[in-house]
Amino acid sequence: MPAASRRTAIVGLGLMGGSMALGLRDTREVRGYDVDLSTREAARGRGIATADSLAALFPADVVIVATPLEAVVPTLDDLAPLAGSAVVVEVGSLKRDVAAYAGRAPSGARIVGLHPMAGTTESGFGTADPAIFRDRPFLVVATARSDDDALAETEAIARELGGRPVRCSAEEHDRAVAMLSGVPLVAALALARAGEDVAHLAGPGFAGATRLAATPPDLARAILRGDRDNVKAALARFRRALDEVERSF
Amino acid sequence: MPAASRRTAIVGLGLMGGSMALGLRDTREVRGYDVDLSTREAARGRGIATADSLAALFPADVVIVATPLEAVVPTLDDLAPLAGSAVVVEVGSLKRDVAAYAGRAPSGARIVGLHPMAGTTESGFGTADPAIFRDRPFLVVATARSDDDALAETEAIARELGGRPVRCSAEEHDRAVAMLSGVPLVAALALARAGEDVAHLAGPGFAGATRLAATPPDLARAILRGDRDNVKAALARFRRALDEVERSF
Repeated sequence: MPAASRRTAIVGLGLMGGSMALGLRDTREVRGYDVDLSTREAARGRGIATADSLAALFPADVVIVATPLEAVVPTLDDLAPLAGSAVVVEVGSLKRDVAAYAGRAPSGARIVGLHPMAGTTESGFGTADPAIFRDRPFLVVATARSDDDALAETEAIARELGGRPVRCSAEEHDRAVAMLSGVPLVAALALARAGEDVAHLAGPGFAGATRLAATPPDLARAILRGDRDNVKAALARFRRALDEVERSF
Repeated sequence: MPAASRRTAIVGLGLMGGSMALGLRDTREVRGYDVDLSTREAARGRGIATADSLAALFPADVVIVATPLEAVVPTLDDLAPLAGSAVVVEVGSLKRDVAAYAGRAPSGARIVGLHPMAGTTESGFGTADPAIFRDRPFLVVATARSDDDALAETEAIARELGGRPVRCSAEEHDRAVAMLSGVPLVAALALARAGEDVAHLAGPGFAGATRLAATPPDLARAILRGDRDNVKAALARFRRALDEVERSF
């Protein structure tokens, strides 16, 4: 089926889901849902068709789950009796819990993990912008409920958004993200704290190095607490690299 | 004397000196010198008047020393017999050695430290752009050979470039810069090293956090080796802050 005819539902219309809705509506029949009424209204204001409940998103060929991280598995569970043969693509930033959920999901479920390595320190539909996806890696993570067609559909979504799909396992994903998102966030928070008394004298180097300290606290907690073991292991590698660099000068 | 009549010599026409030449030529009578002939030609190609020797820069009212850091004190020494009553403003990124030099400089010398907290990871006249100075702090450091008029002239230069002059001592300067430039550089180098195997999966957060790893090696060495004790002390503060952030999640 060509993408243009794909009925593509998006659950959660924040920065990520909203940007996907705006980026996919030219190639797909997009309909969005968000638990927050004013977010649905804002989406409609920018021409996104919306539904007023999860159930009203169906029938659909693909459902993209773009809720806050802690709501991803509960949403997958809510979708189980509704989704039928639709491919469910969740775009959360950690995959271990999704992998575990998929292992116990109904046998007819079709679940794929996708993580666009894109974003800003802003949040909410008002900041949505499909340009954030251009040329970014999209990590594609197969689950116990993924099939070849579902994976191909997920990669097609990544490409339609201008991204580069890269397959990896849930374990590889979470380890990589601990280093790529967790450590930079911790380093930015630590640098902002250590340099607080001289920040008013700073130039662009320090400003850039502390930019991620502006990450919304709920997202920061999700990144750091959601995968504490991998983040701690990645931080240990970072500390060893700090020692090596310090010894070299 | 109004700035427009100020004969302002600039020694060293790289990113910093070149950007200052381009930024000051509308308000001052600017003449530049660089030891590198092709750099002088490039500057002339963009309308900067140049001299073919240090001596040929004089007479001048102000001399800005914008050489690489290791050449700053030798250049101040070369200027001593030439500068007369000109205000010598050096814009290096460390001030301890300048403070020591000023303490033993001829009694008629007028030397002020200035550090525009601005720059990029690029270098050379070809990358010069006066826009880098806009709204940046310019740290103004008095020496044993500074007087009120020399300090006022230095602050005027900062303002003409669109910056915000802030006075501090050489010691305060070097301690602040160790945290604001040294630690972010070490952290970026360490993160690039620790995350090397997953960098191809990275989004904008990691890319931003490792941007300073592209600092030219000679500048990186100057920042890190030129002030090893302060950088090591600042790194110790950064490590403690890392521990605190890690304990908080």
